[in-house]
Amino acid sequence: MEKNSILKENERIDSLQRNGYSIIQDSTRFCFGMDAVLLTEFVRIKKGDKAADLCTGTGVIPILLSAKSEAAHFTAVEIQEDMADMASRSVEMNGLKDKIDVICEDLCNLKSVFEAGSFDAVTVNPPYMVPGKALINPDESKAVARHEIKCTLRDVITQSSRLLKNTGRFFMVHKPERLDEIIVIMKEEKLEPKRLRVVYPRIDSKPNMILIEGVKCANSGMIIEKPLIIYDESGKYTPEVSRIYEEA
Amino acid sequence: MEKNSILKENERIDSLQRNGYSIIQDSTRFCFGMDAVLLTEFVRIKKGDKAADLCTGTGVIPILLSAKSEAAHFTAVEIQEDMADMASRSVEMNGLKDKIDVICEDLCNLKSVFEAGSFDAVTVNPPYMVPGKALINPDESKAVARHEIKCTLRDVITQSSRLLKNTGRFFMVHKPERLDEIIVIMKEEKLEPKRLRVVYPRIDSKPNMILIEGVKCANSGMIIEKPLIIYDESGKYTPEVSRIYEEA
Repeated sequence: MEKNSILKENERIDSLQRNGYSIIQDSTRFCFGMDAVLLTEFVRIKKGDKAADLCTGTGVIPILLSAKSEAAHFTAVEIQEDMADMASRSVEMNGLKDKIDVICEDLCNLKSVFEAGSFDAVTVNPPYMVPGKALINPDESKAVARHEIKCTLRDVITQSSRLLKNTGRFFMVHKPERLDEIIVIMKEEKLEPKRLRVVYPRIDSKPNMILIEGVKCANSGMIIEKPLIIYDESGKYTPEVSRIYEEA
Repeated sequence: MEKNSILKENERIDSLQRNGYSIIQDSTRFCFGMDAVLLTEFVRIKKGDKAADLCTGTGVIPILLSAKSEAAHFTAVEIQEDMADMASRSVEMNGLKDKIDVICEDLCNLKSVFEAGSFDAVTVNPPYMVPGKALINPDESKAVARHEIKCTLRDVITQSSRLLKNTGRFFMVHKPERLDEIIVIMKEEKLEPKRLRVVYPRIDSKPNMILIEGVKCANSGMIIEKPLIIYDESGKYTPEVSRIYEEA
């Protein structure tokens, strides 16, 4: 396939520097960030897993995880038609049509598509902001990706729990200021928090992300992992982050 | 007062390296650790505050906070008679009888002593372990200090909330593996988590403590602070911890 023939206006192809994979993005719309990359490093997908990625956007997480894991199959769910369309074309461009299905659907409507307990793992990089608590981006797709306009934190967690089988694993990246809500809702929805990693831009700064794993119907008791620090004192990536990007 | 005359068998006097204060401890019993010192650094006691310290043990936290804060008064609560007795003698030895009351009481019985809403701040370094989940120390006082034998995590949080006035502040040091429970119970008991600091022994290790602040009846929304790292790569205290100990 001629790659440029699959691009629409304002779209570009970015290398994912992994397995030769690349991704279609529109620089005027929501593009993936470090949060998505760090989530793919944090998740533990097992060989043969059936996984779902909610709020998939351009599909970067399942595409990266196709390279990084031995999952059997990914279902990528995105509510916005044009983003889901970009994700579908990226999947095709990378020859991953057998590995990744892209579904354009509201995650709250997945009941009609998947039975409860259909997945071994769910990943999600959801909108972080509560509407009304921050300026809303006038660009509709950026706003939906960043703010809880189409789905709330509770929707994301409730639907993830429904999709997971018992002992299935839930992986999310989010903002530190929502940690208390996240933990309470996860426990209410039977996704027991088991593993938390706090991401600090620098060793002397507040964190700007958290990575959390929950296990469906597990016992209580969690681990906080070693800190993930992005930049060293000279402003360069720390060795861990350099390695992630080299491998990504 | 002749200091040695106030010591009982096995007891010793340790300097607190602050205001000339010192503390009576029994090396065969539970002695304070870095967790207590870090908690006194984390807390924000305001001028004129009435504060309570639960599970006070030898009273190290209110004695240190007498030097570090402008609180009006501290009430130190300890269930074990011999520990409370050591705390009382340390308070007297440091000339702090007007500033600190030591009460030997089960914290679940404080209803008969203090009305609800009597305090501006509550500090606590409670037992960390759930009985049955770890080996119990055969020494009774060490066991009570470390295991939830005489009071559970929920008791500590429920009683702290009762003692605090609205907007009163709750400060606790605990173990990372209990973070999920702590957050859920604090929110249930109307101590909204507002501030969390994760304490990592080294930059590349899992944390071994968390420091958390809750505010009674506050709105939801928390901050995770910069990491507190104890040792640098050469095994020496980091500058922040050196400073805490110099100032302690």
